[in-house]
Amino acid sequence: MTSLPTYEDVAAAAARIQGHAHRTPVMTSRTLDEELGAQVFLKCENLQRMGAFKFRGAFNALSRFDAAQRRAGVVAFSSGNHAQAIALAARLLGIPATIVMPHDAPAAKVQATLGYGGQVVRYDRYTEDREQIGRDLAQRHGLTLIPPYDHADVLAGQGTAARELFEEVGPLDALFVPLGGGGLLSGTALATRALSPGCELYGVEPEAGNDGQQSLSEGRIVHIDTPQTIADGAQTQHLGHLTFAIIRRDVQAILTASDAELVDCMGFLATRMKLIVEPTGCLGLAAARQRAGQLRGRRVGIVLSGGNVDLQRFCSLLAH
Amino acid sequence: MTSLPTYEDVAAAAARIQGHAHRTPVMTSRTLDEELGAQVFLKCENLQRMGAFKFRGAFNALSRFDAAQRRAGVVAFSSGNHAQAIALAARLLGIPATIVMPHDAPAAKVQATLGYGGQVVRYDRYTEDREQIGRDLAQRHGLTLIPPYDHADVLAGQGTAARELFEEVGPLDALFVPLGGGGLLSGTALATRALSPGCELYGVEPEAGNDGQQSLSEGRIVHIDTPQTIADGAQTQHLGHLTFAIIRRDVQAILTASDAELVDCMGFLATRMKLIVEPTGCLGLAAARQRAGQLRGRRVGIVLSGGNVDLQRFCSLLAH
Repeated sequence: MTSLPTYEDVAAAAARIQGHAHRTPVMTSRTLDEELGAQVFLKCENLQRMGAFKFRGAFNALSRFDAAQRRAGVVAFSSGNHAQAIALAARLLGIPATIVMPHDAPAAKVQATLGYGGQVVRYDRYTEDREQIGRDLAQRHGLTLIPPYDHADVLAGQGTAARELFEEVGPLDALFVPLGGGGLLSGTALATRALSPGCELYGVEPEAGNDGQQSLSEGRIVHIDTPQTIADGAQTQHLGHLTFAIIRRDVQAILTASDAELVDCMGFLATRMKLIVEPTGCLGLAAARQRAGQLRGRRVGIVLSGGNVDLQRFCSLLAH
Repeated sequence: MTSLPTYEDVAAAAARIQGHAHRTPVMTSRTLDEELGAQVFLKCENLQRMGAFKFRGAFNALSRFDAAQRRAGVVAFSSGNHAQAIALAARLLGIPATIVMPHDAPAAKVQATLGYGGQVVRYDRYTEDREQIGRDLAQRHGLTLIPPYDHADVLAGQGTAARELFEEVGPLDALFVPLGGGGLLSGTALATRALSPGCELYGVEPEAGNDGQQSLSEGRIVHIDTPQTIADGAQTQHLGHLTFAIIRRDVQAILTASDAELVDCMGFLATRMKLIVEPTGCLGLAAARQRAGQLRGRRVGIVLSGGNVDLQRFCSLLAH
């Protein structure tokens, strides 16, 4: 078994991203505190560069490229925040980036990736395998492939958000974090074990796709079909090998939240806190609200992981 | 002539509100920096308690009540952010609050005011004079009337936002601030003259109601009809005596922005910065964008004054 990344990797990532990633604000709300009977700290990664925590891991991974890797470039496959994060980090570091995206990816996301200077390669998601295309490009042109979550430098970078949170507010009793492939959750686990060892750590995934929950209970990585949920950042089909190993060791439990609960949280955050948070970004808050009774008197952290939701979609979700 | 408040009053207000008002984050955006060719700092008062800078002035004014005033209570007339600010500050300080609101005030605003513990007195805005009602209540029950802007403690409190901004980012070359009755602008002027004396200070009002601009050019307080604009926080008909005296002394110029420009800024802030800002709160940004060419290479501050816009209204404004 390869050795797992540690908190030292998170600390090293924090030094690398300093001055490049935003140190995002931690916000509080008396209304939320009263609802949960707790003292709640919201780490606002929706206010991170390019709108999500993903920039942290991408920048950390690309910072570690050697001269040959930098010259040859990076390749990534993603229709979401990881693609934009790699494209932006690559531009800042002067590294050519190729992003493999489906033909039917939203025009706004393709535009954003191109806007960050990435080269976009399209594929047909019904007949072609994006991982294969990515690997082929990597091999043919000597590019380095950076996967969205199952990579030591990526997950160590994601852990820097929780590191900042603990630095700012001190130890917590419980921390709720969105869970897709597990990059954010496993990086957060490394920071939590080092900086707030008594803190209960919860990963939260969409009710429609609880592969993480199943994986923890079965003790192996469970694969599922692409879940139907508005939490498009957590539509992953399985955890990674690295992320699963850390999560099973360090995470208290995996919880789930329904789409209706996510919409409710989006409305609360918009109305009361003036923040736009994407559905996936609300997973942690939704689970904390479910457990209001059990959090009484405790210090609770919640990571709002991203804010990249199309405005039109945001409004149509909240109109129902 | 009564002597005008000074920066010492702003500094004293900052000490009074500490631990009660949020120290709101200052945000930056590379996209905005590129658009303006400047280094831009956004002071996010939409993230202030109850959603707007108004809490600062209200809390400062009520903190200065003596024992008899505290027992008797406060009265305010407003259909907007000032009412909620007074109600919340009064609750926190244990002071009874009476808020005079029109019969047709939005249910959400009445609910919010009641939710903060205020007692609401309704009036008919077509047949009754709210100022008269407020004064009658004050006289009959010994209440202290706190007006929304033309009051030394209110405007000194509003100046604490700019004080925090300068403390955090240092001196600026230009600062753009929304202008309604002038409480925020005049308080900001006191902070600016003391902490960044070389900074050009601009007030920005809606194109439909440029009474401030007219007042500055005519050298007297010009009264206008209630302007038709989406910037409901700046639908004031005239500046105050105190606010005008400070503004004419300390402010570079008054600029205006159209409703269409405000909507454009709301969209930018929501899409790129994940922030919900009310139309009035976008006045400063809109004016800065008009002057992009003249701001090249400069350090520019913008106050986003509030975020209290109904979600349905927010979405319908942005759908056009």
